[in-house]
Amino acid sequence: MSFLTIGSVAIDNLETPFEKRDNVLGGAATFISITASYFVDKPMLVGAVGEDFGEENLKILKEKNVDLSGLQIVKGGKTFRWHGRYHYDMNNRDTLDTQLNVLSDFNPSIPSHFQHAQYVCLGNLDPVIQRNVLLQIKSPKLTVCDTMNYWIESKLPDLKETLKLVDVLIINDSEARLLSQSPNLVKAARIIRAMGPKILVIKKGEHGALLFTENSVFSAPAYPLETIVDPTGAGDTFAGGFTAYLAKVNTINDITLRKAVLYGSAMASFCVEKFGTEGLLNLSLLEIDDRYRSFLELSRIEE
Amino acid sequence: MSFLTIGSVAIDNLETPFEKRDNVLGGAATFISITASYFVDKPMLVGAVGEDFGEENLKILKEKNVDLSGLQIVKGGKTFRWHGRYHYDMNNRDTLDTQLNVLSDFNPSIPSHFQHAQYVCLGNLDPVIQRNVLLQIKSPKLTVCDTMNYWIESKLPDLKETLKLVDVLIINDSEARLLSQSPNLVKAARIIRAMGPKILVIKKGEHGALLFTENSVFSAPAYPLETIVDPTGAGDTFAGGFTAYLAKVNTINDITLRKAVLYGSAMASFCVEKFGTEGLLNLSLLEIDDRYRSFLELSRIEE
Repeated sequence: MSFLTIGSVAIDNLETPFEKRDNVLGGAATFISITASYFVDKPMLVGAVGEDFGEENLKILKEKNVDLSGLQIVKGGKTFRWHGRYHYDMNNRDTLDTQLNVLSDFNPSIPSHFQHAQYVCLGNLDPVIQRNVLLQIKSPKLTVCDTMNYWIESKLPDLKETLKLVDVLIINDSEARLLSQSPNLVKAARIIRAMGPKILVIKKGEHGALLFTENSVFSAPAYPLETIVDPTGAGDTFAGGFTAYLAKVNTINDITLRKAVLYGSAMASFCVEKFGTEGLLNLSLLEIDDRYRSFLELSRIEE
Repeated sequence: MSFLTIGSVAIDNLETPFEKRDNVLGGAATFISITASYFVDKPMLVGAVGEDFGEENLKILKEKNVDLSGLQIVKGGKTFRWHGRYHYDMNNRDTLDTQLNVLSDFNPSIPSHFQHAQYVCLGNLDPVIQRNVLLQIKSPKLTVCDTMNYWIESKLPDLKETLKLVDVLIINDSEARLLSQSPNLVKAARIIRAMGPKILVIKKGEHGALLFTENSVFSAPAYPLETIVDPTGAGDTFAGGFTAYLAKVNTINDITLRKAVLYGSAMASFCVEKFGTEGLLNLSLLEIDDRYRSFLELSRIEE
């Protein structure tokens, strides 16, 4: 089934306690579309970059068969840039610099052949833009939305309008607590699902993820990695894998949703094993299925 | 199979954001033995209380068929008392007061008919006492040890000596990080298992638990509770359920260990639903198995 993502396409400067790299390809739509390429044909990307983006970065996306007809290359513009530094525990990070550049007046019109996309993954962006994009999609089968504490704190009324329109919200545990004003994640899930999204995924980093649907709660484990090289993009990768797996099987029920959480988690575990998008560029479907089965093993009780 | 626990027997003053209760029966050995009573006949308790402990508290333990021949009632002594206050999120607490009383010179000799116990659960106590007890048990089949940050910080060399003698260590995630000096729990597990215990359980509160054995990692979910009334004793209850389930099935392998983690988690989920030991006093085996099956459901992927 057709898959569309909208989000940032970025150039990042990344610092971990062990390594520092400048001018690394990044951005939510980048991670989401590259991840989706393992599940669907020609994932559609909507975004904007500047003239500085570079042929090499375009080539990376093209080689993963990403449909770039919705990627605007703004004449005279500069690409969105993010500079982050991870703490020693890799669970926390500081943003040292953000340059919105071409994203500062980004409000895309969706190419007509993108408007029939069936599975839509809204990367973390201003909720007003997310809503404007959603309203241009004719009849999506599933809409999945990411957001972050910045929008919860600065644009809550807009975010709430967007949430009314989406089927799935994917956020992390601290964002869920912030959005719901409840420290208890089960209560938080009830409150957030009442805001619109009937399906909620709460990512908990090293503690895995929770999936809340009408009928049940699913607890997904995290992959036990001894070494995390770079957590950048793990959340976007999760969202991309989750949505694109559902696009591939084109069936939405409690079982496929649970599997989608594990495929999202599996893809995110590959992401953090290398810098930037590197861990996602040369995977085989066999490797992905092996990793998925490792996730099953982590919580299997043989009877 | 026979089951023995040693640990504190206490009278607690408890404060949660919603309620305050004084003179509540508590202590590690109390929670462990009451929990064990659902899995084994006549769990043996080794501990000490003062003359103030009261007939009513003794009656609670007797009604759960706990063998109290190892419970010393110190003439003229006072029972160990703990006063704690939980934060709004229930994940953190402050100790407002600790009175060791009879525990200050507690160093028990194990009654001869207790010395053949096969499954031994060492509640959180001074590691020197834990070791002295262990050395009095003739040939235990499985030894399980709990500890806490206080002993890791103040008696690390003694704790390390004790760890050389135990089969299973059960600690929480912050204690695992402190003991291993590693922020990564997978690395922490490797380091701690090299200290002695071949089996390690890391409890993560609302995030479930991890089981590390020679062969595999198991990730257990947490029960999604909207309301936690009182977390006191949840960790002890987990240890009691874990060890006593293994005593009941009298088989130790990766499958029974995984099930033991879920039974421990199930018992702990009952514990936190009421104040003190109240949630553990009137359970049926059917309720326990239903809760265990809910845990299975939380991570089940139907194929």
